[in-house]
Amino acid sequence: MATSLLQELIESLRCLPGVGPKSAQRMAFHLLEHDRDGGRRLASLLSEAMEKISECSRCRTLTEQDVCSVCVSDRRDVSLLCIVESPAELAAIEESTNYNGLYFVLHGRLSPLDGLGPKEIGLDRLESRLDEEVVKEIILATNPTVEGEATAHYISELASSHGILTSRIAHGVPLGGDLGYVDGGTLAHAFAGRQKIE
Amino acid sequence: MATSLLQELIESLRCLPGVGPKSAQRMAFHLLEHDRDGGRRLASLLSEAMEKISECSRCRTLTEQDVCSVCVSDRRDVSLLCIVESPAELAAIEESTNYNGLYFVLHGRLSPLDGLGPKEIGLDRLESRLDEEVVKEIILATNPTVEGEATAHYISELASSHGILTSRIAHGVPLGGDLGYVDGGTLAHAFAGRQKIE
Repeated sequence: MATSLLQELIESLRCLPGVGPKSAQRMAFHLLEHDRDGGRRLASLLSEAMEKISECSRCRTLTEQDVCSVCVSDRRDVSLLCIVESPAELAAIEESTNYNGLYFVLHGRLSPLDGLGPKEIGLDRLESRLDEEVVKEIILATNPTVEGEATAHYISELASSHGILTSRIAHGVPLGGDLGYVDGGTLAHAFAGRQKIE
Repeated sequence: MATSLLQELIESLRCLPGVGPKSAQRMAFHLLEHDRDGGRRLASLLSEAMEKISECSRCRTLTEQDVCSVCVSDRRDVSLLCIVESPAELAAIEESTNYNGLYFVLHGRLSPLDGLGPKEIGLDRLESRLDEEVVKEIILATNPTVEGEATAHYISELASSHGILTSRIAHGVPLGGDLGYVDGGTLAHAFAGRQKIE
């Protein structure tokens, strides 16, 4: 089976996240045996996407245009700005919530040990954006990890220096979650962040 | 997030087996954010493989050459011929066993209801190969399914009409398997196929 091209293809498929040697082999054989058209289409879309998709010049999400469709839309509330760590999280928010404001994508989180400072996650661009635009509220939707919290804290300071209201998305027991199986940190967070019923 | 190219890429990634909408999204974002080189390499290998890889003219496995490396090798025992259903199974046998003969790949199994007759799985080519070459033993390594067994039976008749010895790979309890958890069919097979200890 020393088909070098086939082996190279299998090896190369492993650059996809969650794909090990067995899945890569299965994918390669599947495409070659049953779906050559799909494979060709995937190849051309992949190469096109790798060349054409880059960051939106305004919110830094991934787009093939200069400015993404969210930023370009005139039906969004420009006074709301949601900060997310990655384009995938932006997509998740767009899919599941009725949030109607704009976004800013950090492409990471503050992590000095990994050499990620404010500049690396685009906070200089965020700041100049806060200077230029009339943002009334910043919604911090970074992940509830240590770095995510530190990033949220850093940005909230930045915002308050511009006199902008900052909020953090709620963290607590997920819907359908069972209190007995929720981790201690989440439960403590849920208690600390309890809300009055009026 | 109506980036059409990005969405097309995500949709296209779903042609890979075992990839649903969430994994496809994750793969696309991963490549775009962290591994553009990997994505480009994958794109070019995919398109090259889809064009160049075809069936070995002798054993019908997938190869970029006219005749695959197994068929071309002069260190293989040409009197042994192993029949497998797919190139993936050929690869598995090459990887795990020390089988040293040649192969013939059916690319399927006899399944009249799906319109797969002897010709569709290349048995005419197998027969002309049995006429031309000196095959002493045919090893049937089709899967132990109803169709696989029927295919094995059909080929064994074909072989006996050519006066060729036929064998079937053993089916039984897998190594490390627990008798209590093995399905009834396998256990019955293991009993029926018991071998004398000498």
